[in-house]
Amino acid sequence: MFLWISINHVDDIQRRDANAQDLRHAHPPPRRARGHGPPSACAPHPVPLRFQNPHRPSADPAPSPEPAQVSDIEFATPQEAEQAFYQAFERADLPAMMSVWADLPNTVCIHPLGPRHQGRTQIEASWREILSAGLRLRFTITETQYTQDALLAVHVVQENIQATGESGRRTPILSTNIYQLMDSGWRMILHHASPAPRAAEHGRSPSLH
Amino acid sequence: MFLWISINHVDDIQRRDANAQDLRHAHPPPRRARGHGPPSACAPHPVPLRFQNPHRPSADPAPSPEPAQVSDIEFATPQEAEQAFYQAFERADLPAMMSVWADLPNTVCIHPLGPRHQGRTQIEASWREILSAGLRLRFTITETQYTQDALLAVHVVQENIQATGESGRRTPILSTNIYQLMDSGWRMILHHASPAPRAAEHGRSPSLH
Repeated sequence: MFLWISINHVDDIQRRDANAQDLRHAHPPPRRARGHGPPSACAPHPVPLRFQNPHRPSADPAPSPEPAQVSDIEFATPQEAEQAFYQAFERADLPAMMSVWADLPNTVCIHPLGPRHQGRTQIEASWREILSAGLRLRFTITETQYTQDALLAVHVVQENIQATGESGRRTPILSTNIYQLMDSGWRMILHHASPAPRAAEHGRSPSLH
Repeated sequence: MFLWISINHVDDIQRRDANAQDLRHAHPPPRRARGHGPPSACAPHPVPLRFQNPHRPSADPAPSPEPAQVSDIEFATPQEAEQAFYQAFERADLPAMMSVWADLPNTVCIHPLGPRHQGRTQIEASWREILSAGLRLRFTITETQYTQDALLAVHVVQENIQATGESGRRTPILSTNIYQLMDSGWRMILHHASPAPRAAEHGRSPSLH
């Protein structure tokens, strides 16, 4: 009745470029789950999906007659929602970012060293501030750890971030991302991010606990 | 078939003292859930449970004939496991702390500003280091946000910490604690903690995202 998977794969989810060509599905999109039943498919080793941003022009020869609305977007898997999250971040696209988030009062977002934002209004304001800062970031996601049941998915990842115009990589970020299956597919309900210590600091005792 | 609850209550879970007298159940213990079926009871406003540490002498007039082993401990609810987690922390009791954690390879522990520890060996080593440092900490847990389905429970809390011998409170810690229902009851599978900014810093832009 319940499906439980726990996956740890260290392969990078490469996000080489943000152009639409690279972001089209490399594999046929899975059937989209609706309702609160068990997901229709949970591959033991899910292939990272490429998310095609409906807010961007498509190179597809058969365009849809009218552009998709943010509220129409469904993410068939937590991985697809996560892909959309980081792509919205890379593109500094606030509507796309907010399309990933569940519109629930229990959503929580904690940016690195930041306070806790709860609920859509606070979370959207925090992303507006971040995404309007003019930085263009590129994410390489590694050390992915997925734990999932029928309605909740817990992803622990390392975000390796490079900013346009900066030579080196930034401090990696450790993130816990949680998704919930809703009528409209999987949506993010929590993003908790914190800076990883640099390699030389790994041996130090944690100072705050 | 699936039970979904989302609870946000800001009432403090008061942990006034770590002595056994205060820690006895103020309410009858709930029936313990076994197996991977839906929990037998999910109160919409769960009463914080007092966890009686089996490693400590009990004032109960009818002691059990032999002391409970760590492996025997079952936590009937995620709240009960969380109570045990913070009490083990307060008591610097490593066996009690590790009794809360699931013995699974996908467990993850990220201490404030610390690296990611994965799996029981790494997690136990990190707690051994912290709990042997000689600090006695007292936790008041506030801003609790619980999201739970049949097999997973996500708790977001604020840890307000006072150390014995220190006059002021430490920097509050924002924690995401995740529990999984196993054959042996609810066990922690993730603890992700990060320092909250001080009140005066709340208006600052997040610097790392």
